[in-house]
Amino acid sequence: MPKKLQDPNFALYLSPVVLVTSADEAGKPNIFTVVIAGMACRKPPMVAIGVHPWVYSHSLIKAAGEFVINIPPQGLLDKVDYCGSVSGREVDKFAETGLTPLPATKVKPPLIKECPVNYECVVKHTLELGVHHLFVAEVVAVHTDEEILDADGRIDIGKFEPVAYVYPRSEYWTLGEPLRKPVRKSGLRKGKKE
Amino acid sequence: MPKKLQDPNFALYLSPVVLVTSADEAGKPNIFTVVIAGMACRKPPMVAIGVHPWVYSHSLIKAAGEFVINIPPQGLLDKVDYCGSVSGREVDKFAETGLTPLPATKVKPPLIKECPVNYECVVKHTLELGVHHLFVAEVVAVHTDEEILDADGRIDIGKFEPVAYVYPRSEYWTLGEPLRKPVRKSGLRKGKKE
Repeated sequence: MPKKLQDPNFALYLSPVVLVTSADEAGKPNIFTVVIAGMACRKPPMVAIGVHPWVYSHSLIKAAGEFVINIPPQGLLDKVDYCGSVSGREVDKFAETGLTPLPATKVKPPLIKECPVNYECVVKHTLELGVHHLFVAEVVAVHTDEEILDADGRIDIGKFEPVAYVYPRSEYWTLGEPLRKPVRKSGLRKGKKE
Repeated sequence: MPKKLQDPNFALYLSPVVLVTSADEAGKPNIFTVVIAGMACRKPPMVAIGVHPWVYSHSLIKAAGEFVINIPPQGLLDKVDYCGSVSGREVDKFAETGLTPLPATKVKPPLIKECPVNYECVVKHTLELGVHHLFVAEVVAVHTDEEILDADGRIDIGKFEPVAYVYPRSEYWTLGEPLRKPVRKSGLRKGKKE
């Protein structure tokens, strides 16, 4: 069967759903729901998030150059919706959602206690692409709840229930199950002549 | 229970697994497995992929400013492993894997026929972050197999079996099931005073 040519009005199908915290100059925090989020580099560890330039969190991140990515479990989906639906210019989303701010170690925006993984991020590049600006940031600290770690101390996402955002139908999805580890035969390692 | 501070030696937990095709000046194509891939902007539709600067595909993408993202179903995982394990400088991966190149419409690198979704991409920004360089590219054409579309003509990933890459344990995962649509109450739309 031949391929069907689509309008390029959407792009890659999968993103983590995350709650991004930011703070104003006085330290007052905000929470915003982001569904364009992913790794950008392994070393140094960097992430990229896409944020509309007209939302309040964008102005806070742009001014401070800092944010925290918090990974919500499925049980927080109503709060995830709420934080993507109202503006921090108008409401105190920590107060309205009952989520608990915890101090970060290297940046001003707080961690969200109820999210089992939190990445403190410092912006290194900003690309003004279109309806989203891409903040590319170094991860300077990672916090986790003890109970989601495996025996080696690494995050085991099988131990909580993260949410994936699926395009272009804009749906929340569960993750399924691990298939297997990748098999890399020769290993295209840095410095290896290939 | 208190949060545990981790070394920031990894970052966001989830990426699509994709096969990226590129081509040299003569049009000879290569395939490379990428596990740092995501949306960057909704309009214009843009994506970002992270590629090691020392791999062959990096040099091809850098020279041509073009690539194609192909979404492999689970049945292609052995080929996904293979394409991430050997260098296109040494082997013809289309020949070795038996995957079928199809001509793209707007870029020189081919689509992979056996992948039900293909995005033709033109590089707009390159960020040399560290062990990965981030290519941020506009999606200029999207191709799909007819049988994975829903009644509205949109990709329904429930109709094939894409693979998610999960950090930091570096595992292939299945997607699970749709939870529900997001609920956006007020809608933080562009131009809306908020």
